[in-house]
Amino acid sequence: MRDVAIIGAYETIHGNLQKRLLRDMVTEAGRGAIRDAGIDLKEIEAVYVGNYAGQEFNNQNTMGSYVSTVLGLGDRPSMKLEGACASGGLAMRAGFHAIASGLHDTVLVLGVEKMNTKDPSTTMEIVARGQDSDFEAGFCVSGPSGFALNAMRHMHEFGTTKEMLATVAEKNYFHGSKNPFAHKQKVIPFKNIMNARMVTTPFGFHDVSLVTDAATAIVLTTRERAKSISKKPILVKGSGHGGDYFTLSLKKDSVSFPASIKAAEEAFKMSGLERKDIDVLECHDCFTITEIINIEDLGFVEKGKGGIFTLEGHTRLGGKLPVNTSGGLKAKGHPIGATGVGQIVEMTFQLREEAGERQVKNARTAMTHVLGGPGAVSVVHILQKDFD
Amino acid sequence: MRDVAIIGAYETIHGNLQKRLLRDMVTEAGRGAIRDAGIDLKEIEAVYVGNYAGQEFNNQNTMGSYVSTVLGLGDRPSMKLEGACASGGLAMRAGFHAIASGLHDTVLVLGVEKMNTKDPSTTMEIVARGQDSDFEAGFCVSGPSGFALNAMRHMHEFGTTKEMLATVAEKNYFHGSKNPFAHKQKVIPFKNIMNARMVTTPFGFHDVSLVTDAATAIVLTTRERAKSISKKPILVKGSGHGGDYFTLSLKKDSVSFPASIKAAEEAFKMSGLERKDIDVLECHDCFTITEIINIEDLGFVEKGKGGIFTLEGHTRLGGKLPVNTSGGLKAKGHPIGATGVGQIVEMTFQLREEAGERQVKNARTAMTHVLGGPGAVSVVHILQKDFD
Repeated sequence: MRDVAIIGAYETIHGNLQKRLLRDMVTEAGRGAIRDAGIDLKEIEAVYVGNYAGQEFNNQNTMGSYVSTVLGLGDRPSMKLEGACASGGLAMRAGFHAIASGLHDTVLVLGVEKMNTKDPSTTMEIVARGQDSDFEAGFCVSGPSGFALNAMRHMHEFGTTKEMLATVAEKNYFHGSKNPFAHKQKVIPFKNIMNARMVTTPFGFHDVSLVTDAATAIVLTTRERAKSISKKPILVKGSGHGGDYFTLSLKKDSVSFPASIKAAEEAFKMSGLERKDIDVLECHDCFTITEIINIEDLGFVEKGKGGIFTLEGHTRLGGKLPVNTSGGLKAKGHPIGATGVGQIVEMTFQLREEAGERQVKNARTAMTHVLGGPGAVSVVHILQKDFD
Repeated sequence: MRDVAIIGAYETIHGNLQKRLLRDMVTEAGRGAIRDAGIDLKEIEAVYVGNYAGQEFNNQNTMGSYVSTVLGLGDRPSMKLEGACASGGLAMRAGFHAIASGLHDTVLVLGVEKMNTKDPSTTMEIVARGQDSDFEAGFCVSGPSGFALNAMRHMHEFGTTKEMLATVAEKNYFHGSKNPFAHKQKVIPFKNIMNARMVTTPFGFHDVSLVTDAATAIVLTTRERAKSISKKPILVKGSGHGGDYFTLSLKKDSVSFPASIKAAEEAFKMSGLERKDIDVLECHDCFTITEIINIEDLGFVEKGKGGIFTLEGHTRLGGKLPVNTSGGLKAKGHPIGATGVGQIVEMTFQLREEAGERQVKNARTAMTHVLGGPGAVSVVHILQKDFD
């Protein structure tokens, strides 16, 4: 297997982009990443696209061919990969494997979701189809109500509190306030988060991620080629992909996501690195509890201690392990198929020291983590600075 | 790269299966392929799923996790791959790469589409989202009208006739009449095909493929492992994936599909084989003209000669190159995401000499070919008997 490097990264601003055309968002992100890589369009050999439900949100299926055509790369092989909220992570992993295995030398990985519709309840129905429709989604077990079960159980077993959840939200809004690409770029006072209207116990309005439109893209090539093209290549040191049961009633417990544990295990093993080597983490905070469970599942804190670790400020910029410096799904936003690729973009900015006010000092190694469906799919990547 | 072999193959009967549950179809095909392989369920390490639009047809997105969960493999990594009518081919190729690259030792590839709905016009709208919605599908350029342009131009440039198109349909119905898994198992007289009601010039009712429900599955492993498990392993000698522009107005011509040419080139190169080595071909006859264009693009006959080659009977059982012995998309049916995997199932049956009345004598090497969207995605595989 060959070493793989990131040489280009770009993302559109995240937000409610109902007035923009899907094709224009794709063009901006795809062309942006290729320009950032400093290569010619024709050097891209294949296109991997993460998208969750273009056919429902935008009347557009077959997003692999759509994206490659819009970018003037229609004659290249392309495909769409889908795994609910982990779709972008799967696209990144497919691109990684294409380079690592020698199938291609340079590829584009693009994530896109334009999910704001005129009717928010339509959007929520489409999102719920990422759960088991026969047995659960059809009976109102959706993202919020499903993850609320995890939160209630985590609180019961480990004494996790609503303050701890609110601390995740407050921190991620704070990080987002420093990110010019974020959907919400505003600090929200802790008190407002605690007192927000209830969505589903124990989640208030601010415990829930955003409905966001965006396109995100990266260019991958071999490490060898990256050295000759890029001043700031980022090495992909590890890639992992884990699965777990899609149907909540089949799960073993409610306080961890085994898919994340397996994905992290695979990525760490490939990388030869340890938890202590990770300087900055972008993980899937679809709900505030998810970030707390993630830092436990990924092995950074003991099971049950994620809440107190967060409350103590260790995951904030300047802390031991800054988590979601972009603002995460909470403040940067959660454009489903674009999220996993957007995490790679943010970590690339961090490792290149281009993260502006949210820069983590001396960041050398980073991790990204997405979680799709009811904890059913997880993809983890470990990235490392390959220049000094 | 390691050699890859097929050790299990299974498909449900194809048809209008509105009264069956999606999960039962998935169970039958997945369990069937694993039983056919003679391995234990727990030996499957990952699941690759081809599906086009489960979220629209069945309210079920994230089909990778759905399928793995239904099969009791929920804790394995899984993903859905989509490329319109080539989705099953992409899933097969992803599984092939997983084994070839050493990522996994044994995997399941499953295609599924349950696309018959109470309202056929809804089905057609969903299918049309595999074209460029902004510029074409929204203006009634759908599968039938788009491929009709190819047919009209092919007739104009090469003198291809309506009789030649009808010969494709008559032959594929004849082949389907010998396939117990086919949607239509009945011979249709040539005269009826010629006189059928018009759908869109020059296509009559019988020039068009079927709206079909089915699940199809195969088990892949390393060649080495296959030798110790299977009495009749089938080697995957070559895999190819080509792309072309998604938007008809951007295409160079209307008489060939460059995606197919590229996919075949890649697969032949990998295999070290030549056209003359192929004993039987399963190709994408979504419309009768498509089969004629395919046998040209894949290099079996000169451009423009596909119609006359068909009229002369060379593609019929017993001919020089039997094409679509299963009945093809025309008679076996076209369950979109399942089609590409179903082709592999049929060719496995042929190479194992298990194709009953439709057996091609002394078939040693076979090819499969799918084409997705408006000729935008093509996947080709070359298979070879690995026993005597």
